[in-house]
Amino acid sequence: MIKKTWGNKFDALLVSSTPNIIYLTGFNGFSKDERECFLLLTKRKKYIFTDARYFEAVNTITDFKLVKLSSNVNFAQAFKEIVGKEKINKLGIDVEDLNISEILKIKKTVKVCPDENSIEKQRIYKNEAEIENIKKSCKLGDSTFKFILSKIKLGVSEKELAKKIEIFILENNAEISFRPIVAFGANSSSPHHVASDRKLKKNEIVLLDFGVKFENYCSDMTRTVFFGKASAEQKKIYQTVLDAQTKAIENLKSSIINHKSITGSEIDKIAREHIISKKFPTIPHSLGHGIGLEVHEKPSLSPKSKDEIKIGMVFSIEPGVYIPGFGGVRIEDLIYIGKNGLQILTRANRELIEL
Amino acid sequence: MIKKTWGNKFDALLVSSTPNIIYLTGFNGFSKDERECFLLLTKRKKYIFTDARYFEAVNTITDFKLVKLSSNVNFAQAFKEIVGKEKINKLGIDVEDLNISEILKIKKTVKVCPDENSIEKQRIYKNEAEIENIKKSCKLGDSTFKFILSKIKLGVSEKELAKKIEIFILENNAEISFRPIVAFGANSSSPHHVASDRKLKKNEIVLLDFGVKFENYCSDMTRTVFFGKASAEQKKIYQTVLDAQTKAIENLKSSIINHKSITGSEIDKIAREHIISKKFPTIPHSLGHGIGLEVHEKPSLSPKSKDEIKIGMVFSIEPGVYIPGFGGVRIEDLIYIGKNGLQILTRANRELIEL
Repeated sequence: MIKKTWGNKFDALLVSSTPNIIYLTGFNGFSKDERECFLLLTKRKKYIFTDARYFEAVNTITDFKLVKLSSNVNFAQAFKEIVGKEKINKLGIDVEDLNISEILKIKKTVKVCPDENSIEKQRIYKNEAEIENIKKSCKLGDSTFKFILSKIKLGVSEKELAKKIEIFILENNAEISFRPIVAFGANSSSPHHVASDRKLKKNEIVLLDFGVKFENYCSDMTRTVFFGKASAEQKKIYQTVLDAQTKAIENLKSSIINHKSITGSEIDKIAREHIISKKFPTIPHSLGHGIGLEVHEKPSLSPKSKDEIKIGMVFSIEPGVYIPGFGGVRIEDLIYIGKNGLQILTRANRELIEL
Repeated sequence: MIKKTWGNKFDALLVSSTPNIIYLTGFNGFSKDERECFLLLTKRKKYIFTDARYFEAVNTITDFKLVKLSSNVNFAQAFKEIVGKEKINKLGIDVEDLNISEILKIKKTVKVCPDENSIEKQRIYKNEAEIENIKKSCKLGDSTFKFILSKIKLGVSEKELAKKIEIFILENNAEISFRPIVAFGANSSSPHHVASDRKLKKNEIVLLDFGVKFENYCSDMTRTVFFGKASAEQKKIYQTVLDAQTKAIENLKSSIINHKSITGSEIDKIAREHIISKKFPTIPHSLGHGIGLEVHEKPSLSPKSKDEIKIGMVFSIEPGVYIPGFGGVRIEDLIYIGKNGLQILTRANRELIEL
């Protein structure tokens, strides 16, 4: 499976990013912030390099041979030995993940060559087990939305709602896939607002953007609701965003049914142009992003994306309109391109909700 | 404050790592997993580069001038303009954080030079506000330990306890600083065990390693308790680990009082040699690590560390003994070197607990 994607450019691949390590081993114990593990895939064998904190844990990963690191044997030394044994001449490396000092150490031993995201290119196409986990995350996301609606009350703070979202997800035996975004009133015009102590007032926008992680697979959804009555202007914005999303999804659906090729930038353009046609400012972010082991992965649905949408992909479609000082509306759903067509994995109500 | 640490090696510094960005701006809204912001510190001015998702949020960071990025103006383009305006010839970069493709883009515009962790070297010395936050995290860690002791019951699973730790911390308006480690029985011999569905049985070891993050500042503590009676062998291991920790702390305390220089490796050696003298295997990890905005930062207390312990530093001391198939014991506390001597910030009972 892996060899095929290498082509003839190199005879072994060094895997260093934590999501790629989870993808290839199923083990999710390594830190995302620190270098605690390397995988080396050769034509003959697969190796896992880690230190004593993980020796027992990685024993369960039976298709990888453990190479033990310690304060006496560092990675460069252990790596050199394997390179000799496996007669590796050219090594593929992840230039977006390794830092320069790591690359310099490796270069002493072997010729390196940038790997063109061969693992990420596999991860883009989800298999059935992956889809099942993403579906479970989406389903719990839907229940979380239903639950949190009942907690939107006068005087509640953004931080309190964010906390309730997180606790609800934990109580349901999953994790958050990212820190929930909760924005009231004018704060909602900041697409990635950090939940604050601001308390909810009557007739305010409530923007909720959150995700679940179940068995390492992420969901992501956004709903914007109105606490009290939505004004005419707010209703117009909401309808524009909803129509932009619907248009993008319908267009994509018809391309898939008709086996017509469509790229991320083409879908982005449909939603973006609808919003501009209604005299609102353009979306200040991408229309959408792939999702899986990471919240943001390939494909990209953005103005310059050349990624072609294909069967097996899962991604968000999330147009938004943001007016500084007034507020913003974003609606985000996850889409899966299955063998039998397009599926919307997040099922929560998308119609305007007034509480 | 910053210029001083640069020396004359370069005339501007590019700051890219998320903890360094939080340190310099106080804003913690950027992702740790993706590149969403750069800071550029020149002799004249400070700049923050980010995209429209954050324009409003970073407006509150008044000492930095915002440089707006978009799908039309990428970082390389915006950066080039500022380099010209500020007449930057030599730029300090973080070679442990930037990836090669980022460095190549920057190199087109300016001569780059590795910065020797000038921000991390400032972060090592905590100011009063930072210490206050770390103390609050430690205090909540202590309450969490007290709370979780009451939840250790026959048949509870590792995952359930980990979940209860996380929810308790959230309910107390803080976050976890890392995913809690909960290990029962033989699982405790794996220092970084991932909490599983294993259920607690009578007379088993319970190892708990968790931390709190309050206002971006982390705590970290480990306690090992016995559900039922500890065996003679378990008691011997526990006492050895406790003595190793006490010896290391006492030795450090006396060095500080007597203004005698002491390095991370010297403290590590004291605990390590005590454990070996009792015929147990050496500690398979460092004795300790600095802590602050990150769970693991400088100084290092490890066999090869040359870091000298000085006033203002906060770090863990966490010896452990691990016997595969049998179990492990680790005791971890946070130490602060204040102007008036050494303080132990984590206060939970360190004596052997039988539940």
